[in-house]
This record gives sequence, structure tokens and C-alpha cells, in this order.
Amino acid sequence: MTKIALLLSAAALSFPALAAPPPEDVGYAVLEGLTTEIGPRLAATEAEARARDWAVKRLKALGFANVHIETYDMPSWERGIGTAEVIAPYPQKLVIAALGNSGSTPPGGVTAEVVGFPSIEALQAAPESAVKGKIVFVWHRMAVTQDASSYEANVPVRYATASIASKKGAVAALVRSIGTDHHRVAHTGVQAWIDGATPIAAAALSVPDADQLERMLALGKPVTLHVEVTAHMTGTHQSGNVIAEVPGRDPKAGIVLIGGHLDSWDLGTGAIDDGAGVAITTGAAKAMLEGPRPKHTIRLVWFGAEEPGGFGGKAYAAAHGKEKHILAAESDLGADRVWSFRLALADPKAPIITDLSRALAPLGIGFAAGPAFGGTDVEPTGATGVVLMDLVQDATRYFDIHHTADDTLDKIDRAQFDQNVAAWTAMLKVVTNSDADLTPAPGPAPHE
Amino acid sequence: MTKIALLLSAAALSFPALAAPPPEDVGYAVLEGLTTEIGPRLAATEAEARARDWAVKRLKALGFANVHIETYDMPSWERGIGTAEVIAPYPQKLVIAALGNSGSTPPGGVTAEVVGFPSIEALQAAPESAVKGKIVFVWHRMAVTQDASSYEANVPVRYATASIASKKGAVAALVRSIGTDHHRVAHTGVQAWIDGATPIAAAALSVPDADQLERMLALGKPVTLHVEVTAHMTGTHQSGNVIAEVPGRDPKAGIVLIGGHLDSWDLGTGAIDDGAGVAITTGAAKAMLEGPRPKHTIRLVWFGAEEPGGFGGKAYAAAHGKEKHILAAESDLGADRVWSFRLALADPKAPIITDLSRALAPLGIGFAAGPAFGGTDVEPTGATGVVLMDLVQDATRYFDIHHTADDTLDKIDRAQFDQNVAAWTAMLKVVTNSDADLTPAPGPAPHE
Repeated sequence: MTKIALLLSAAALSFPALAAPPPEDVGYAVLEGLTTEIGPRLAATEAEARARDWAVKRLKALGFANVHIETYDMPSWERGIGTAEVIAPYPQKLVIAALGNSGSTPPGGVTAEVVGFPSIEALQAAPESAVKGKIVFVWHRMAVTQDASSYEANVPVRYATASIASKKGAVAALVRSIGTDHHRVAHTGVQAWIDGATPIAAAALSVPDADQLERMLALGKPVTLHVEVTAHMTGTHQSGNVIAEVPGRDPKAGIVLIGGHLDSWDLGTGAIDDGAGVAITTGAAKAMLEGPRPKHTIRLVWFGAEEPGGFGGKAYAAAHGKEKHILAAESDLGADRVWSFRLALADPKAPIITDLSRALAPLGIGFAAGPAFGGTDVEPTGATGVVLMDLVQDATRYFDIHHTADDTLDKIDRAQFDQNVAAWTAMLKVVTNSDADLTPAPGPAPHE
Repeated sequence: MTKIALLLSAAALSFPALAAPPPEDVGYAVLEGLTTEIGPRLAATEAEARARDWAVKRLKALGFANVHIETYDMPSWERGIGTAEVIAPYPQKLVIAALGNSGSTPPGGVTAEVVGFPSIEALQAAPESAVKGKIVFVWHRMAVTQDASSYEANVPVRYATASIASKKGAVAALVRSIGTDHHRVAHTGVQAWIDGATPIAAAALSVPDADQLERMLALGKPVTLHVEVTAHMTGTHQSGNVIAEVPGRDPKAGIVLIGGHLDSWDLGTGAIDDGAGVAITTGAAKAMLEGPRPKHTIRLVWFGAEEPGGFGGKAYAAAHGKEKHILAAESDLGADRVWSFRLALADPKAPIITDLSRALAPLGIGFAAGPAFGGTDVEPTGATGVVLMDLVQDATRYFDIHHTADDTLDKIDRAQFDQNVAAWTAMLKVVTNSDADLTPAPGPAPHE
């Protein structure tokens, strides 16, 4: 508790109205509650539905307006079991996690020789005869970066390896985890069946296990694995977005859209991805709710089903894309400190950039040129012509944890989490009281 | 490669006899080979037998004398499956690992309410009525310490909780992992059935899962778990010690006994526990083999079955306890740097202490007063009247990894590993060429 919060608590003994907890505590309580009382929240499952109900209850209790759920249907997927074992010449178990949309092995699993490639390009260049009937393994490396650029660079390995392998006749595909840690927890994440590739088992090895398999292959003898994956699509199920508002004083002024995503992968409790994002933006929205009424309505969305392909963000844009939005932004890179912001306006000298710089500088946040990404969930709204803004977080630690069983509450650095809530609050204060023209700079969105 | 090693490599172009790799590379190659080609090596299993065969081949190839296996029979145990899931009120899976000698749940598992205790003393004090029919959970905390003292303090929680719980009628017992990390990998380790306690399922929760369950209990509603553990004893099986020697020039001078343990828990590949110990001592012994012949024979033992209760060390003492040993020491606390040494002689002013201090000071190692522990595998030899010596390693990181799936090769800090090989080599040079009287100081061994 901060010193000021303590003073307010003391004051609350005689003045109960002052007892409202500070917004960072509101945010953290959301994160702790969601990750403890719900835990993993895989898209379009009963757990995600329970999370929506929890969200509505919490957001109503916090006093937000217009709290409701908007549902949509989508194809859903189930992990089942996933095991891998070296049969010869060095018998031992390996840790894997099936990737989203992975197919399954034949019942009882598949036993085959491994063929390894240092990169997806090397796999692409390999003749069918080198791959057919084998288990493909791609062991590319991923660097630690502050700006998440290494993730961008390596996602295609996760996304496309199994399709390329399947088209060349492989019986299963393994990739080194798209991750930067050294723990026996594999990084899941979505992959797709490209150009009509036949689904096969597609899984990530934990980083130590990928290193182990790479070392075995380097010894020069054929390495045989047994892999069993029972992952499969489960048909069409319901997901949904949870919406809450801080009403603005001018209904015609348009909406400032903020949020994070409520769904998580099923392995961890979704603390950094993306319980943190919904918690940070909820804390900031609550600060705005407690303060003077803003000009613009703040619409807070806890998006559903981001992980399997941004279904919630697309459903939101389909339902609300014609409403007047003046800016959209999402928190979806953990809870480590915000170090820069991006907002590319048609008028690059617009005074609001200076206003934002002044408001954010005390938190150590500087302006960065270039178009904003916005976030998977607000990109479809951005595509309707609404400007996107980024409060860019430090991603140095993020890909140690991202999409693993290790994504749990203890990974949150409370001081950095609090800085995020403060940053979003400062941003909202400027934007929701501004008359600035927020026409976006021309040009394509950076992430297509 | 060190600068000197590079120079030697260069020299080897014209003088092949100088091409022998430096001892730290010999040691690391043992560690890499053992953890890659064998992997996990649970006591008295086929994997431990494969590891013995691998060891004999490697130790012979390195040129050691008298390389052989000495077998013994022992009771052995199998992990089977181990799962835990919160059924109500916050449904989600938890990560557990059965403890050594754990019993099993009834087929299909057991569903019961959790009763939590902050310490083993609180469990001990609880009435039977509070425990009967329930799943006991003890969530004590373990601190990070350089000298491993926190492990000593917390081991009883792992060792005895299930016995106390079983005697009060609990249906299963869970403990917070005896570990200092924050990853979803639980720490196994041995426990026992004390005073005839009936075996039940006994398991450790990973630290994040233990924190999660503690948070759930703090919310005040009854928490129901489903636990399934199929761990069981598998009868009597064979284990063994692998022995190799550096012959001394004086057969009557007695033996200097060194080594580590070859077995590991089954979850990781046993890199820090204790591939590192056998690798470090083998590297140092190889340095002695390459140098001038020592006065004393150095006997290097890769002990079997340390983890379930030091069976290899007891078998060694039973077979060899009557031979003349002048000193015994073991490396079994990972591969981080040696920071002190302990050697308690009857004559505390014996000049060999000064000799050792001089030899070890350049490596940052100082003399520490007090009796040495020696290591689980050499304690039984110490009990025959042989002095024990410790080259004390930094344990700060050790219990992040110890007894988990995360105990893999990537956890080795190569610079610190090399310092260990150098420390053991320096120690052996002094001890195996000394005429000192190594009569131990009187008093009980510190660990009984």
C-alpha cells in the first residue's frame, strides 16, 4: 500500500467515502482473482464462460456502466494428451506441448525417425524423400529482445512448420519452443494448416528438450521418437467479449476503446497473457470512473478468444465498427514497465503528442515514432479508420513465460504493474479530455 | 577453451602427445554425455544399469585403472502417474510430483476436502478429527541460502508430512515443494513411512501451485481436490557402484576416496544432481592420472542409489570399510563455485591445513572451521573413522533446480564448473602427496 493510500485508509475511519482502494490495487485484485478463482481460460470452453461470468460480477461491483457480455460462435480445439519419448539410441522422455489447432497422431501414437533442420527455410528446401514418414524437428533459435521483435521473427516457425512438414509427408512436427527461458515447460501457441495441409501432430519441445534432441542428432546416429498427441478440433462453441463503460459527458464525442484479452492458453493461469492486460486497463478505467467525468466514453473490453486468432476483436469490430471511436489501445505484453508510446497521427505535430509526452515522461515513458500496433484485439477496429495507440511494454522477460504453464501470478512484478496502471491512467486523462483531431497517419497498419 | 589450452592445442599440431584435453573439458564431456546419452537415472532401474555400463566404457577410455562395477540389491520404487485437480470451488489442474516411496491413491484417485497447515508442527498439533478423510497440505516456506542450511531445515516437511497425515487418517498428503524457484515443476525427493504409518499418496506441489492452493484456502470456502497417484514399490532390484582408480606409488599409503552419485531422480537428466559431482571429480582424477604418480591411490566412485537413501555409499563401506582410507570427500551440491573447505583434524594446527589453504586461496576458497559433512555417499566410510573433507559449493541457485524436471545440462555455469575441477585437482595434489596425520577430530559426525 502506498503512503498516500495509508493516509487515505486512516482518513477513511472517519470519512468512509475516501476508503476506495487505489486503482493499482483494484487492478491487482482483478488479476489475483481471475488467475486464482478461474485459472486457465482456453477460448470457447466452459472455463472461459466462467471467466466471463466472474468478469461481469467484478465489473458491476466496481461500478462500471453498461456491463454486459456479447457472444459469438467459433471453432474450438482441445489439447488432450501430448507425450514424446526417445526410443533409441538414448531412451528418455521429452517434454512437449501441442500447438493450437494441432491434429492428433494415430491412436497409440507414432514411432519414427527424426529429421532435424536448423530453420524453416532448410525444411522448405529439403526434398520430400528426406521428410516422408519422419518426425520433423526445427530447432531455430530465439533471442531475448526488449521490443518483442524476436517473437515476430520466430512466430512463422511455430505457425507454419507443421504445414510444410505435412505437405512433404511427415508424420509429426516438432519445433523448439518460441521462448527464451530454460525450463522444462513448453511454449504453446497457435499454428495453422496452410494451403490445405493435412493436420498432423504439431508440438513444441521445451527449450532444454529441444537442445537435448539437437545434441542427440549431432552425435550422428539415427534417433527414433515415439510421439502421442490426442489434440483435436471440438466443433463450434461459444466465446464472448465482456464490455464495461465509464460514461463520457458528451455522447457525441466518441469512444476511447481500451482493454486486454480474457482468454488464455490452457497451460498456465494467464497472468501475464493476458490477465495483466485486463487488470491494468481495468485499474486505469476505475481511476477515471472515480475522477471527474471524462468528455469521451471509455469502453473497456475484456476480449474473448484472442489466442486462437483474435475472434473477440473481430466480433467486436463487426458489432461496433460503425460507432464513433476516436482511439483504440490494448495491453497485451505482460506487466513489465511501459518504456515508450506510439501514436501516428495525420498531423505529426499535433499538440496532443506533447500533452501525452508531458503526462508520461514522469513515468519514464518517451514518444516513439512510427505506426502503433494496437494489439490483436483492437486491430480490426483500427482497420475501420480509428487511430491505434501503443503503451509499449518491456518484453525482456515476457517470452520466458508466455504461453507456458509458468504463466502464473508470481511472475508479476508489482512495482512495474503499478507503473502500467499509472501510465494508462495518465494516457486516458489526456485523451478523454482532448478536442484533438485524432485522424491516423496514412499508410498500412504495421501488422497484417 | 583457456589460453593455456589453446597454446597446448597449437603445440599439439607438432607434438601430438600434448593434445590431451584439459581436465575441465574431460569433466564437462562426462556431464554432457551422461545427461544426453542416458538422461534420467532412477536408482535400481534399467536406466541406472545403462548408466553404469556407459560409465565403465568412459572411465576405461579415459585410462583409469581397476574400472569395475560392484552391485547390490535394494527395494525400488516407480513413480507412475500423478495428477491433481481442484474440483470446487475453483476448478483447475495443479502440478504435483510424487515423493520417493509414495504410496498410491485407490484406483481412479481420491476426491476430498483439503486441510491446510502452515507448518509440520501445526499438522502435528491438529486433532485427528480435523484431518481424517481429508487431503493434508503443508505450505511452509523455504529461504534461499548460500550454504544449503534452509534445505536442512525444510527436509523434515518432505520426509515426514505424509506419515503424520496418514496416522491421523488423511487420504493423501501434499507439501509445498522443498525448493526456491517459481516454476511449474515440482520438487520430488525421498520420504519415509515412519513408525509403521500406512502408505498413502505423498506428493509435492510446484511452488506456484502451492501458492495458488494457499490463496484458495485463504478465500474461506472449502476446497475439494481430486488426486490420483499410482506410485508404488516394485520389489527388490539391482543397483551398483562404478569404481575407477588412479594407482598410487605406495600401495600401503592408503586410499583417498572421492566421487559423486550416478543415480538421479527420474524427472530431470540429473545434471546438477549429481552428474556434476561425478563429472567434477572425474575431471580432477583425470588431471592426477596425467600428472606425476601420487603417493596415495585415488579411488573414484560413481555411487549408485544415493537419492532413495544412500544405498551405494552403504554398500561401498560394507565392502571396503576395512581397507585403509586416509580421507573421503564427495561433490554433491551442483556445479556452482567452491567458496570454502572444511577438514576437521585431531590436530587443528596440522600443516596440511595451511598447504590446502595456500593451494585453494587462488581459486577464492577459504578454510572454514567445523566438522565436514562429506556427502551422503562417503558418510558411511567416514563412520569407520576416516576423516571427511568438504569443498563447499555455493547453493544459492541449487534448490531452484534440485529434484525437478529442470535439472538439465543448460543449468551448468561452465566457468563455475571449471573452478570446481580446478579446486578438486588442487586438493588432490596436496592430499595425495602428503605424509600428514589425517586423524579426524573427535566428536559425532554433524549429520546423523
